[in-house]
Amino acid sequence: MTEISQLLSGQPRAIARAISAVENGSESAAGLMKAVFSNTGKALVIGITGAPGAGKSSLVDKLAFHYREKGERIGIIAVDPSSPFSGGAILGDRIRMATLGLDKNVFIRSMATRGNLGGLSRATVDAVAILDAAGFDKVIVETVGVGQDEVEIVKTADVSVVVLVPGMGDDIQAIKAGIMEIGDVFVINKSDREGVVRMQKEIEALLNLAHRPDMWNPPIVKTVATENKGIEDLATAIESYRGFLKSNDASTVRRQAIARWRLLEILQERLLSDLLNRNGTNEKLDLLAAEIAEKKSDPYSAVEKLLEK
Amino acid sequence: MTEISQLLSGQPRAIARAISAVENGSESAAGLMKAVFSNTGKALVIGITGAPGAGKSSLVDKLAFHYREKGERIGIIAVDPSSPFSGGAILGDRIRMATLGLDKNVFIRSMATRGNLGGLSRATVDAVAILDAAGFDKVIVETVGVGQDEVEIVKTADVSVVVLVPGMGDDIQAIKAGIMEIGDVFVINKSDREGVVRMQKEIEALLNLAHRPDMWNPPIVKTVATENKGIEDLATAIESYRGFLKSNDASTVRRQAIARWRLLEILQERLLSDLLNRNGTNEKLDLLAAEIAEKKSDPYSAVEKLLEK
Repeated sequence: MTEISQLLSGQPRAIARAISAVENGSESAAGLMKAVFSNTGKALVIGITGAPGAGKSSLVDKLAFHYREKGERIGIIAVDPSSPFSGGAILGDRIRMATLGLDKNVFIRSMATRGNLGGLSRATVDAVAILDAAGFDKVIVETVGVGQDEVEIVKTADVSVVVLVPGMGDDIQAIKAGIMEIGDVFVINKSDREGVVRMQKEIEALLNLAHRPDMWNPPIVKTVATENKGIEDLATAIESYRGFLKSNDASTVRRQAIARWRLLEILQERLLSDLLNRNGTNEKLDLLAAEIAEKKSDPYSAVEKLLEK
Repeated sequence: MTEISQLLSGQPRAIARAISAVENGSESAAGLMKAVFSNTGKALVIGITGAPGAGKSSLVDKLAFHYREKGERIGIIAVDPSSPFSGGAILGDRIRMATLGLDKNVFIRSMATRGNLGGLSRATVDAVAILDAAGFDKVIVETVGVGQDEVEIVKTADVSVVVLVPGMGDDIQAIKAGIMEIGDVFVINKSDREGVVRMQKEIEALLNLAHRPDMWNPPIVKTVATENKGIEDLATAIESYRGFLKSNDASTVRRQAIARWRLLEILQERLLSDLLNRNGTNEKLDLLAAEIAEKKSDPYSAVEKLLEK
């Protein structure tokens, strides 16, 4: 069996190798992804984001259990662009492996590496395509941060879920965080805490300001993930947006916008790696970086020197 | 007076125009930044990050007031990579303008735009250099998100401050968020709440795991920003790290790493914009994006087509 057919038949080791290849850069991924791409489009891709501390991991785990009970196969990608020194994903992964990880029909992977060339967003979206092609019914992408990269990753999902908690709403920061505008479904997790009604009103008020181009009115679901409460409502809300997408032209526009974004991501990475792979570029970079650090040159002049033939 | 000399003499309109230029792309920024760069290096650049809801804005405002009382001039860049639809920075800006914004010696700017080419990190670091050259004594960069871009921006500061709040610590997410490892100074804000001792112990435990290459032991400062408590301690902690940096080789290594990162950011943006500026590339992109959306092509093959001469 070839590597690709092993992947398409859902073998975990082949899937893991493929994801490592896309993590290593767009060049090593290109051949693989060309073969993978025509086999995608069957999975429902669910993006889940929200502030740290909102309980996203628990929610994702419970949602995965919910789908498992229906006999579905679940892929989970946890995007964790953190840990320059020590690799912070490890603790969380160990805890998860103890619960979901022993189930053959669940594949969990943390994506944390981001090299010099960027490419975490590109690698994550590639990994989602790999799990889709490998026959998982649902692919859940969970982000840890709430930065621009994470927002873009979640926007490439079929359904974007934003997780909030009561008590966050009294801070302007939460409003500014921009995640309000990407949600197709909102979750108030830890909804056994005080302040749920207020939070809900605030979300509704912000949604009224947002003016979605597709006229969808995002449902607000209350959950207590740790007690498995509200998970079925969340699944229903996700399904209702999927239904809306299917009956709506917005789906085509969205897919094209995502495709354009992916093209630019891959292009940018490829252009830089082509340049860096030229003989001597890396040494030149180090030299120029030292000159800039000593204020003997500025970054813009240095870039022009690098681009000279 | 030329545009550059107006900028260097600290005229707000010239500064605002310069920042708009760097927001518009690396090409329009290049000439300007070459002139600006040799005038940088005097300001202390303070990066402030933390989860949404941690009270970063209040803390930044109070810290700015503190420096103002010493007669210093303060530049503030609020990085807000949010708001694809409606521009979420507006509300926060209005509130701030009502307090700090009337002071001529304080310059506040939100950076929210991020075009097709990325470049928010590059534009932010350029804006910091502009404020530095314009003679501000302190330049504070505050990020709203806690994603990869934000972490990278804060890492380019002279001193990185991470703001946490009591009660966040019981969630693994907070640990995974990766911001633990970039802090030179930690702040427990809202320290009149319950759970401060626990939070402090957790930060200390995590710092023990982190093994900083430069052997600095990050101080943990307790603040209640809204009541102006602990702000002087924060300023002292920032100053102590500045002193450490000066007496330490780490400063050179750090400056070179930052310079290398900036070079790659500018390079990547320039390479992509050079390609997109070629005749017909944009139309080709749209066409290929449509093909990918319809699964007639895959993104990697499409990129190869775009790179063909």
